[in-house]
Amino acid sequence: MFIPKEVEIVEVGPRDGLQNESLPISTDAKKTLIAQLAKAGFSRMETTSFVHPKWVPQMADSEEISSYCNDLGITSIALTPNLKALERAIAAKVPQVAVFIGASTKFNQKNINKTTSESLDECVPMFERAKKEGIFIRAYISMAFKCPFQGDVSLEEVKYVCDGFVELGADEIDVGDTNGKADPKLVYERFSRLRDLYPDTTFVGHFHDTENMALANVVAAMQAGITKFDSSVGGLGGCPYSPGATGNLSTEDLLNMVKRMGCQTEVDYAELIKITPFAKSLSSKL
Amino acid sequence: MFIPKEVEIVEVGPRDGLQNESLPISTDAKKTLIAQLAKAGFSRMETTSFVHPKWVPQMADSEEISSYCNDLGITSIALTPNLKALERAIAAKVPQVAVFIGASTKFNQKNINKTTSESLDECVPMFERAKKEGIFIRAYISMAFKCPFQGDVSLEEVKYVCDGFVELGADEIDVGDTNGKADPKLVYERFSRLRDLYPDTTFVGHFHDTENMALANVVAAMQAGITKFDSSVGGLGGCPYSPGATGNLSTEDLLNMVKRMGCQTEVDYAELIKITPFAKSLSSKL
Repeated sequence: MFIPKEVEIVEVGPRDGLQNESLPISTDAKKTLIAQLAKAGFSRMETTSFVHPKWVPQMADSEEISSYCNDLGITSIALTPNLKALERAIAAKVPQVAVFIGASTKFNQKNINKTTSESLDECVPMFERAKKEGIFIRAYISMAFKCPFQGDVSLEEVKYVCDGFVELGADEIDVGDTNGKADPKLVYERFSRLRDLYPDTTFVGHFHDTENMALANVVAAMQAGITKFDSSVGGLGGCPYSPGATGNLSTEDLLNMVKRMGCQTEVDYAELIKITPFAKSLSSKL
Repeated sequence: MFIPKEVEIVEVGPRDGLQNESLPISTDAKKTLIAQLAKAGFSRMETTSFVHPKWVPQMADSEEISSYCNDLGITSIALTPNLKALERAIAAKVPQVAVFIGASTKFNQKNINKTTSESLDECVPMFERAKKEGIFIRAYISMAFKCPFQGDVSLEEVKYVCDGFVELGADEIDVGDTNGKADPKLVYERFSRLRDLYPDTTFVGHFHDTENMALANVVAAMQAGITKFDSSVGGLGGCPYSPGATGNLSTEDLLNMVKRMGCQTEVDYAELIKITPFAKSLSSKL
């Protein structure tokens, strides 16, 4: 069984976790959370989204949050769903941006009423613009294993989006079990194929704990050579477009497991668990 | 990554799950649970304990339960902590009995005030008696990974108990993460060593979900060739002698995962999840 010497955990709680909170969360509370996470050792985290505040009012303070992260000295990743969002991120001096496309054809249509091909087309000017600025691009393939609308998602569908992202020059590709329905076999097989197909690409595993399989899926992904994983402090978040897709893998569970397995990480577990109650207090769901 | 074609799930809810319930559970309720589990497909389950009713009043109906299981046509396993219990089990025509010894020296001392050597000595007449009756013997090594009193449990400690059980002729050895503190690396390494040391022995993995790692540990154990696992319907049970050791791996989670991984089992998931609400209703903890 392969056990990586080192594991990178990318904390996504401040963005993926808080994005869908119905309760307003103050900018100060977000800053406190980010500062605590930085203190626990996270050098890179997904902190905000430059989505239009009309759609996600929770993320209206993305400029201020991004600037705060730069002051703190951490590498923040901001979600930029379109060119306008990217321009705002560039103006806010965000070092890393994230874009996403659902691998599942049906999900993409229901979610944003576009084909994956149309979604990839829209990415072209964004990648060009980000590349010109030297900004690191994290490309998410969501619903890369299963889909609430179509069930199975084929390797071909994932490959189609991955081909596009690789061609456009994504710096890392984050493969998401967005509705938490993947199992260890599927995770192992999918990541093994992706690593064969794209040997020069850095992949990240993003698991949801909907069916309590997230940690088992992490172990399976490790067997395919994956050493970077997303997680969310306190298990904050889910997916508003995906029925039943509650529960990001919690950072506490992930860190506990990889530490016990002897994997090195940059994060201090004792510091992390001090944050949990505050993180959960920000959520109406936990 | 190794994925077994077939997995045996041994349901332990009726015994391990209900044993420590503070609320009395009627014999009829236990029969209903066992009948439902049998209907879902379990052909073998741990159903009762012949421990003296003074110690575990919850198990005072072990004769009636064992007889009911024989009538149902399922293979019941009954815990027999001593020779007297074994004689009762024999009289009740129980086809399989279980004995247990903690691998952790400190646990054994705190739990039953005996050394593992003394515990093994006490097993000698029990194994002889059971063998004479042709009864299948499941031998539990509890606290085989970590211990609430001493922390780490060494391979040597596990080997000491395992040597004894193998010599006495145990039909299967059930290796328990009784306090739910094992991680996938430890599980893989320990089972790999045990399988090397005892190539002719059948091992079973018994995991608790205390730290949400039970399914990951199942995947790790599979990598060491383990294909038999215990679990408890509704996640019933825990360990009264082990602080914080709540949460047997739930049968629902285990079956869901192995089915999704394409492993064959004898159990029907749709039938199983019909039982969950009733199983949980028997517990004051769930």
